Amino acid sequence: MDFQQKYDGYKKLVENFLEQRTRKKGISKVDEAMCYSLSAGGKRLRPVLLMATAEVLGKKGYNYLPVAGALEMIHTYSLIHDDLPCMDDDDLRRGKPTCHKVYGEAMAVLAGDGLLTLAFEVMLEQKNVPGDVLVEVAREIAMCAGNFGMVGGQALDLAAQGKTLTAEEMRTLHSGKTGAMFIAAVRSGARLAGAKPEQLLALTKFADLFGLAFQIRDDILDVEATTVELGKPAGSDEKNNKCTYVTLYGEEGAKALLDKTLAEAKMCLEMFGEDARLLSEIADMLKMA
Amino acid sequence: MDFQQKYDGYKKLVENFLEQRTRKKGISKVDEAMCYSLSAGGKRLRPVLLMATAEVLGKKGYNYLPVAGALEMIHTYSLIHDDLPCMDDDDLRRGKPTCHKVYGEAMAVLAGDGLLTLAFEVMLEQKNVPGDVLVEVAREIAMCAGNFGMVGGQALDLAAQGKTLTAEEMRTLHSGKTGAMFIAAVRSGARLAGAKPEQLLALTKFADLFGLAFQIRDDILDVEATTVELGKPAGSDEKNNKCTYVTLYGEEGAKALLDKTLAEAKMCLEMFGEDARLLSEIADMLKMA
Repeated sequence: MDFQQKYDGYKKLVENFLEQRTRKKGISKVDEAMCYSLSAGGKRLRPVLLMATAEVLGKKGYNYLPVAGALEMIHTYSLIHDDLPCMDDDDLRRGKPTCHKVYGEAMAVLAGDGLLTLAFEVMLEQKNVPGDVLVEVAREIAMCAGNFGMVGGQALDLAAQGKTLTAEEMRTLHSGKTGAMFIAAVRSGARLAGAKPEQLLALTKFADLFGLAFQIRDDILDVEATTVELGKPAGSDEKNNKCTYVTLYGEEGAKALLDKTLAEAKMCLEMFGEDARLLSEIADMLKMA
Repeated sequence: MDFQQKYDGYKKLVENFLEQRTRKKGISKVDEAMCYSLSAGGKRLRPVLLMATAEVLGKKGYNYLPVAGALEMIHTYSLIHDDLPCMDDDDLRRGKPTCHKVYGEAMAVLAGDGLLTLAFEVMLEQKNVPGDVLVEVAREIAMCAGNFGMVGGQALDLAAQGKTLTAEEMRTLHSGKTGAMFIAAVRSGARLAGAKPEQLLALTKFADLFGLAFQIRDDILDVEATTVELGKPAGSDEKNNKCTYVTLYGEEGAKALLDKTLAEAKMCLEMFGEDARLLSEIADMLKMA
């Protein structure tokens, strides 16, 4: 089975889990808005990363679908709120109208709130893990998603519009905005699968570099790809006057940095040998063609 | 020590905890917006309810400050998002400008997101409780705060504006919007303190009736009190064409229903005798003068 088939298999597992777990509806229309965004597609990268990391340590990734699915809920909530008129004001996401375009602003705020809350409910349903481990995993996911992580990065991003950032400021911004949830995904997978401290350390370093590579690639794609390819408006960074790895290093410079970062990320996996093959191949997905 | 002194003592404990727990700042200005709303005052009713419930079962309430404080963070996030221009569009809250009036809409969305996320981080820091119990407590809080509870109730409230609701529809709306978090507070306190099933059942029934009484009182106050007394615009229900217990039963009818509901709530505490005194006195706070 080649890598793409394998990846798609994991993705399907995540999507089935999300569909099944949100089938029972609550008391209002907010469920519909939540499911609209949750089922809008995407690579399901964070949950697949969690599962692939568990497999590095010899565990079956599909055993951790509640925590993995919760990560996708957190990611989706962040996209809904990020797209709001008072934030990035985007009309398209993954080729579909954004949540507030379909359900209105108020309902989109609530859909995001609902998904973030449901994420914690769902991750705490994880079975076959000692209570203390699950508490620690969920606490760390909250830390990565909050004001020291993703929410903090979003707030920095707001404040940065129209400003020129230093490389260090950019790194802090993206470590929060996108990096923290990759770290949450990999560390959760590792902890759930019972990683030893030195394994956790190497995997955390991998996740940090993976997140950096992801952001550099995102910045390059925003310049190179078309709106149809991206499923969201291309060239929006330039439109929004954003400081990116491309504005900082130029297109070629950003590509070189991407290659270097990916190579470093893969070095962190060497100690796991063949067991890290899937995780390593996921990192290869970030290479520019 | 009279009741008010005692209540203020618990309130002070919660406020000190919140102040101390949010002292370490994250990477962006969102922390400032979060603390602005979190320190804006209020009765701290949900955390005090949690502590008072633990004391019904012979435990010290101050041992559960992480979970109690987290409930106040969830409550505060819901107020920030509720006040947004796309929701209730309120300029005043507890006599102070609302979060988005001070920090702008985008930052207020993020401040709410940050507080909701931090709430889960903080509650999972609770010590001296078995991991399995804490997982169950946190999962139930998420359930009460989400699309089957508070967020669902908010969404029903949005949809209900300008419509006449039946008594049953009103009950569903408020059970979600305000009632669910009172249930979360009381049940968390009970579970953390090791309640037996029949104790948990009686306390849950108490919390449900307490929440109903709270809402009826809120509706009466909106008609009777002034903006200065409320710290938010009085008469806003009428302005927003909302269906309330006063529009449904009239002022006198609503007051009679409040008395009846409080009496029923206090009956649920009879089995605990003198141990439930504090909780019973908190219910008495909801009586109209």
